[in-house]
Amino acid sequence: MALWVRFAHGDATGFGRLEDGRIAVHAGELFAGAAPTGESLDLAAVRLLAPVRPGAFLGLWNNFHAAAAKQGNAIPEFPLYFLKNPGSVIGPGEPIRPPAGYAGKVLYEGELGLVIGRELRDADEAEAAAAIFGLTCVNDVTALDLLFADASFPQWARAKGCDSFGPIGPAIATGLDWQALSVTVALNGRVRQDYPLSDMILPPARIVSLISREMTLRPGDVIACGTSLGALPMRPGMQVEVTIEGIGTLANPFAP
Amino acid sequence: MALWVRFAHGDATGFGRLEDGRIAVHAGELFAGAAPTGESLDLAAVRLLAPVRPGAFLGLWNNFHAAAAKQGNAIPEFPLYFLKNPGSVIGPGEPIRPPAGYAGKVLYEGELGLVIGRELRDADEAEAAAAIFGLTCVNDVTALDLLFADASFPQWARAKGCDSFGPIGPAIATGLDWQALSVTVALNGRVRQDYPLSDMILPPARIVSLISREMTLRPGDVIACGTSLGALPMRPGMQVEVTIEGIGTLANPFAP
Repeated sequence: MALWVRFAHGDATGFGRLEDGRIAVHAGELFAGAAPTGESLDLAAVRLLAPVRPGAFLGLWNNFHAAAAKQGNAIPEFPLYFLKNPGSVIGPGEPIRPPAGYAGKVLYEGELGLVIGRELRDADEAEAAAAIFGLTCVNDVTALDLLFADASFPQWARAKGCDSFGPIGPAIATGLDWQALSVTVALNGRVRQDYPLSDMILPPARIVSLISREMTLRPGDVIACGTSLGALPMRPGMQVEVTIEGIGTLANPFAP
Repeated sequence: MALWVRFAHGDATGFGRLEDGRIAVHAGELFAGAAPTGESLDLAAVRLLAPVRPGAFLGLWNNFHAAAAKQGNAIPEFPLYFLKNPGSVIGPGEPIRPPAGYAGKVLYEGELGLVIGRELRDADEAEAAAAIFGLTCVNDVTALDLLFADASFPQWARAKGCDSFGPIGPAIATGLDWQALSVTVALNGRVRQDYPLSDMILPPARIVSLISREMTLRPGDVIACGTSLGALPMRPGMQVEVTIEGIGTLANPFAP
């Protein structure tokens, strides 16, 4: 079990292990040979960044039984995913801002994020499980009115890829058992999503294995496992908090 | 007017300007301060690579009048795009290989690719035009049977994001007038697509401007402008050549 964070400290950025409110700064590569520098920083003295900058950022649709049942969707046997713009990633505390001129609904979606730790293609489920470096929280933000703005072409990439629509963090947790965890989302402190990850249709290792048969996954890639019931529009000024026990709380204001 | 290429030469990779069959090797950043090293290489002595590795790789749907008319699609006022997996990019000569176990149709789609040269957000059309570093050829390869394999969710990211489904190149041409150009695609030497870029619905500067209002574009990002009539399945062993005058021919074998 470890919690990895990236941070800004003065003019510099770095990464390290978070323990008891302090960061043991590390050097090298997070996914290959990170080693402690000996430096320790107070968590309160840094600003946390997105814990990783993914090269590919995938998000699943329809991956929880409860949501599939409510929405009348069939149970998929292959992960149904869209690609999120990797540049949409922001870190804890950064504001979620819809595009200028967009006045439609903006939804939060609290999700479990898988962080890939090694290059992977054509992997079986055991290899896939071993290639998941750790878990993080994702808020898969969606401009709902863009998604179906064109009757002939659902705009998943556009609706989910706007700048700031990919909050992730606050940390990457290693060694967690996802099956025991729940995802909660609170808006201004009021819980609006609270669902067990054990309700997942395609579990992490299967998702990663199946995707790796078609596209090579690489260290730092992030796969958001889909959301369940309770994803709703945010109102201006609201604070959105995605919490997964053992990872922490990813908090972002909605600031159009 | 210049033609920029990336190449492998022995164990090294590099980039430079192509002229009269020779490459004037450059150092620095292609999009910021590239300078000639004085070294010159024979084109025949190197292996060309994809001329850029995009961070974001966008592809437009329904952006040519002829195709829209034939398929009965409305004329869009905003670019309708999907995101292609940036890891799907391959260079000239590299084989297009569908995923193991996929025996369905694989389509070529010859397209004009815009290569972004500077960071851009909320840009007007003049700024957008100035931020287009140059033009390249794109083969927007699609596993057609994956696209609509699930009745409830069209799988654009998956069908177009498989490894090797994003051939680009052979060069990035600067200073070209796109309006005078045509895209042709030949299969084993037989022309199957030949359409004028002047038939484009949303022209390059408008595409880039509109997208930049929602997502920041960055140097090296590639936007494929969509295809027109004549995109068809490839058969094993075929050579697919996408040609745009002034850029060159992007040739890849289809090798399942």
